[in-house]
Amino acid sequence: MMNITVWNENRHEQTNQVVRDVYPDGIHGTIAQFLEKEGHQVRTATLDEEEHGLTEDVLHSTDVLLWWGHQAHEEVSDEIVERVKQRVLDGMGLIVLHSGHFSKIFKTLMGTTCDLKWREANEKERLWVVDPSHPITEGVGEFIELEKEEMYGEHFDIPAPDELLFLSWFEGGEVFRSGCTYRRGQGKVFYFRPGHETYPTYHNPEIQRVIANGVRWAEPVKQEKPVYGNAKPLETIGSK
Amino acid sequence: MMNITVWNENRHEQTNQVVRDVYPDGIHGTIAQFLEKEGHQVRTATLDEEEHGLTEDVLHSTDVLLWWGHQAHEEVSDEIVERVKQRVLDGMGLIVLHSGHFSKIFKTLMGTTCDLKWREANEKERLWVVDPSHPITEGVGEFIELEKEEMYGEHFDIPAPDELLFLSWFEGGEVFRSGCTYRRGQGKVFYFRPGHETYPTYHNPEIQRVIANGVRWAEPVKQEKPVYGNAKPLETIGSK
Amino acid sequence: MMNITVWNENRHEQTNQVVRDVYPDGIHGTIAQFLEKEGHQVRTATLDEEEHGLTEDVLHSTDVLLWWGHQAHEEVSDEIVERVKQRVLDGMGLIVLHSGHFSKIFKTLMGTTCDLKWREANEKERLWVVDPSHPITEGVGEFIELEKEEMYGEHFDIPAPDELLFLSWFEGGEVFRSGCTYRRGQGKVFYFRPGHETYPTYHNPEIQRVIANGVRWAEPVKQEKPVYGNAKPLETIGSK
Amino acid sequence: MMNITVWNENRHEQTNQVVRDVYPDGIHGTIAQFLEKEGHQVRTATLDEEEHGLTEDVLHSTDVLLWWGHQAHEEVSDEIVERVKQRVLDGMGLIVLHSGHFSKIFKTLMGTTCDLKWREANEKERLWVVDPSHPITEGVGEFIELEKEEMYGEHFDIPAPDELLFLSWFEGGEVFRSGCTYRRGQGKVFYFRPGHETYPTYHNPEIQRVIANGVRWAEPVKQEKPVYGNAKPLETIGSK
Repeated sequence: MMNITVWNENRHEQTNQVVRDVYPDGIHGTIAQFLEKEGHQVRTATLDEEEHGLTEDVLHSTDVLLWWGHQAHEEVSDEIVERVKQRVLDGMGLIVLHSGHFSKIFKTLMGTTCDLKWREANEKERLWVVDPSHPITEGVGEFIELEKEEMYGEHFDIPAPDELLFLSWFEGGEVFRSGCTYRRGQGKVFYFRPGHETYPTYHNPEIQRVIANGVRWAEPVKQEKPVYGNAKPLETIGSK
Repeated sequence: MMNITVWNENRHEQTNQVVRDVYPDGIHGTIAQFLEKEGHQVRTATLDEEEHGLTEDVLHSTDVLLWWGHQAHEEVSDEIVERVKQRVLDGMGLIVLHSGHFSKIFKTLMGTTCDLKWREANEKERLWVVDPSHPITEGVGEFIELEKEEMYGEHFDIPAPDELLFLSWFEGGEVFRSGCTYRRGQGKVFYFRPGHETYPTYHNPEIQRVIANGVRWAEPVKQEKPVYGNAKPLETIGSK
Repeated sequence: MMNITVWNENRHEQTNQVVRDVYPDGIHGTIAQFLEKEGHQVRTATLDEEEHGLTEDVLHSTDVLLWWGHQAHEEVSDEIVERVKQRVLDGMGLIVLHSGHFSKIFKTLMGTTCDLKWREANEKERLWVVDPSHPITEGVGEFIELEKEEMYGEHFDIPAPDELLFLSWFEGGEVFRSGCTYRRGQGKVFYFRPGHETYPTYHNPEIQRVIANGVRWAEPVKQEKPVYGNAKPLETIGSK
Repeated sequence: MMNITVWNENRHEQTNQVVRDVYPDGIHGTIAQFLEKEGHQVRTATLDEEEHGLTEDVLHSTDVLLWWGHQAHEEVSDEIVERVKQRVLDGMGLIVLHSGHFSKIFKTLMGTTCDLKWREANEKERLWVVDPSHPITEGVGEFIELEKEEMYGEHFDIPAPDELLFLSWFEGGEVFRSGCTYRRGQGKVFYFRPGHETYPTYHNPEIQRVIANGVRWAEPVKQEKPVYGNAKPLETIGSK
C-alpha cells in the first residue's frame, strides 16, 4: 500500500464531449479507480486547483505521482514544477503518461526537448515488450494491441533510457520507445506512451496493469539522503 | 517468501581451519541462516554433492540462486553450468558473490574474461553507494566499511553493468565496481564483491542487508516465455 | 585506413541461384568492394577455407572483422570461435550482420540465446534512427527504407545494448532493435540487422554507409592491455 | 581539425596569485594551447566578455565547447545558458571540467542537482580507467596519478552515465565517477573531474591527452536535424 497522487490537467474533460464520454470521471478519476483496486491510497489533483493541488503537504505524503497533461503545460507554475522535481530527487516516484512528455517536469528532469512526431488518425498501435525480465512488464505477454491511438514517432528527443521496456509499432509506418525508465537523484521515473484523451486507453486492462506495475516499481526506497558539501577525510592524508 | 538456493563450493571449509572458525556452518550455512530470517525457504547445495546439488528439480523450484566458488571453478561440470544458465534465461535470479566472478556460470553469462586485480593484505574496503534510488542499496546509508578484506581492483573485465550500485575504495590504492546488475533473458543477475573466505564478511549485518535486498530484487517476474522462431504476420503484407 | 576482414559463410552462394544472381561475388565480395572504396585494406575469409580463413596471422592483422553466417553456424569450429573472441577482447572490432545473430561468436559474447522471431515474406522494413548523435548513424537521415527484407521481430534475446541506434518497423506488424552496440574487453561490437541473402540489401548505399560508419566506430583504440592478477599495493596498508 | 571554444569563468586568475602563478595565461589559455597543438582552431571566451564571449556567431561556428567555472556560476545569464543548450542539442560537443559540475549548463542538461562531496586537502587522486575500449581513454594506460588535487566524493548526483570511463580513488577514503559521457539531442557531453584551480592539473600531459581525446570523441556528426511535429503517415491506415 502506497500513497499515490494522480495529477491531471483536466481541461479536455471540460471542453470536449468526446473526452467526457470516454472519461466521465476525468482521466485522473479513471486512473485513480484502478489504482485503488490495487490497494493503494489514491488522491487526485488537477491544474485548476490551488497550487495545482500539489501543496507541500500533498507532495510530502505522496510516494508515487502520476502526471497527465497536454494543452496547458505552460500554465503549470515554475514554482510547483520545482517543488515536484525536488520531491522526485528526494525519492518520490513519477509516472509520466502520454502527452506528459512535453510537461515542464519531464523536460526539466530529462534535459532535452522531449519532442517527437505525432498524428491523430485512429490508427493501430502495438506495444512490444523488449524486456521480459522487468517488473513493469510482468504479466503483459508479448505485446499490447490498441485498435486506435494517436501516433507518436521517432526521433523521440530523450536521453537514452536507463531501461527500455516497450517499443511501439504504428500502422502508419513509425516506431516509438514507449516505455522508458530513468533514475534521478533518489527517485525513479517511468514514461509510458499510450493514453490520448479521445480513446479509452486507460480503461484497457493491459494498460492498467502496466501502470500499476510502474507504480510498484517506482516505490521510494528507504534510504537516508546522501550528504553533500565539504567533507572531512575518512583516512589520514599525507602520512607517507 | 521465495525459494532460495545457496550454492557454495565448500572446499576451503574442509581444508582451512581459519575458514572453518569464521564459518563453522560453511559460507552457505551462514548465508542460508540470514536469508531464512528474511522469511524465505532456503536450501543449500555444494560442489561435492551429486550434480553439485543442482538437479533439475532443485533448479526448477529455485527462485533465486546464490553462488560462491573460488578454487574449484573448473570442477563444476559444463552440463550443470548450462542447466543453471538456462534457468537464469528462463527467469531465475542469480546472485554471484566475490570470487564467483571467475565461475563458469558468471563468465558464460557475461561473455568476457571477468578478470581483475587482487591482493590478500588484510586491508580496509569501503563500499560507496552510487545509486541511492535502487532497492538493492535500501537502508545502507552512504557506505559500508569492512576493516579487512581481500582487494579486487580495476580493470574488472565485465560488460558495462546495466546498473552500477557500489564502488569500492581500497586502502592500497585501488577502486572496484563492487555492485553490478545485469539482465539476461528473463533473469536478473547481481554481482556483489565482498566475501573472502577468511574474513567474517557474511556475518556483517550491512553486507547481509545488501544480499537480502539483492535476493528480493532478483525475484522472477511472472511472465510467459517469449515466442521465438517463424512467425505469421499480424498485418496484411503487400496490400498496396 | 584500417585492415578489414570480411567473413562469410559463403554457402547460399554455392547452392542458390537467386543468391548468386544478387551477389555474384558473394556477400563477402560485395561488402569488401564498398569498404575498399572507403580506403581500407580489405580481405575476405570464408567457412570452407582452412581454419575458416581466420588464421592467427589473419586475425592479428585485422582491425575490424565483419561476420555473415546463416545455415552453417555449427560448422564453425569452437577453436576458431575462441580465437576470434580473444581478439575481440584484445581490441579488434566486430560487426555482426543479420543472421550472424545466431553465430557462435555473437552468442558467446552476449551470454544469451540471441533468439528472435523471423519471417520471409518480401515485406517492407523501415529502420528508424533513434540516436542521431552517434557516428554510426552519420549521414543517414531519419530512416532507411528497404522494400523487401526478411522480418526479424522482438523479443530479441540479447543483453540490453550499450547503445541503441536503429529500430525497425515491419509491414507485418513487428518491431526490432536493429542497430546495437556493445563493448567487450577492449573490443567494440556492432550488430546490424538487415541483409537476407536473397535481397540486394548490401548493394543499398544507405546500408553501405551504416556498415562503413560501423567499421570506423569499431576501430581499436591504442591502449595497453590491462594488467590482471596479483597486484602489489600502491599505498601503504595498515599505517594507522 | 575542429573549431574549439574554451570557456573559462576567469575569476580566480584575477584575484588569486596562486592561480595566476599556476596558470599565467588563465586556465582557458593553458587548455587552448595544448588543443592548438592537436591541430584544432581554438578560441577562448570568458565570463566578463560581452555575452560571456558566447555570441550566436561564436557558438554556431564551434564544434566543441569546453567549460570551466566555479565561483560565479550564477552570473552566467540564463539566456546564454539556453543558447548553449540549444547548440548542444543541435550537435555541438560539450566538455565540462571539474567544478563545472555545478554550472547551469551542466545541471540543465542532467536534470539533477549534480551535487557531491568535496575537500581541499592537497591529497592524492588516482584515476582508474574502467573502459579500456573507449577512444577517450586511448593511450592512458591503467591510471593517471595526480599528487595533489581537490577531492570530489560520492554520492555524485548525476543520472547514470551513458558510459563510465574513469573512477577516482582519493587518499582521504572517497571514490568518484570522474569520467562520464552523455548524449543529449544530437550532441555529446563529457564530464571530466580533475582541475582545481590551484594545482597544475591542466599542465599534466596525461590529463591533456584525455581532454584532447574527449574533444575528438565529441565531434558533431553530420546529420540532418530530426523532423518533429505533425507527421503524415508513411503507410495507408485503415486499409483492412
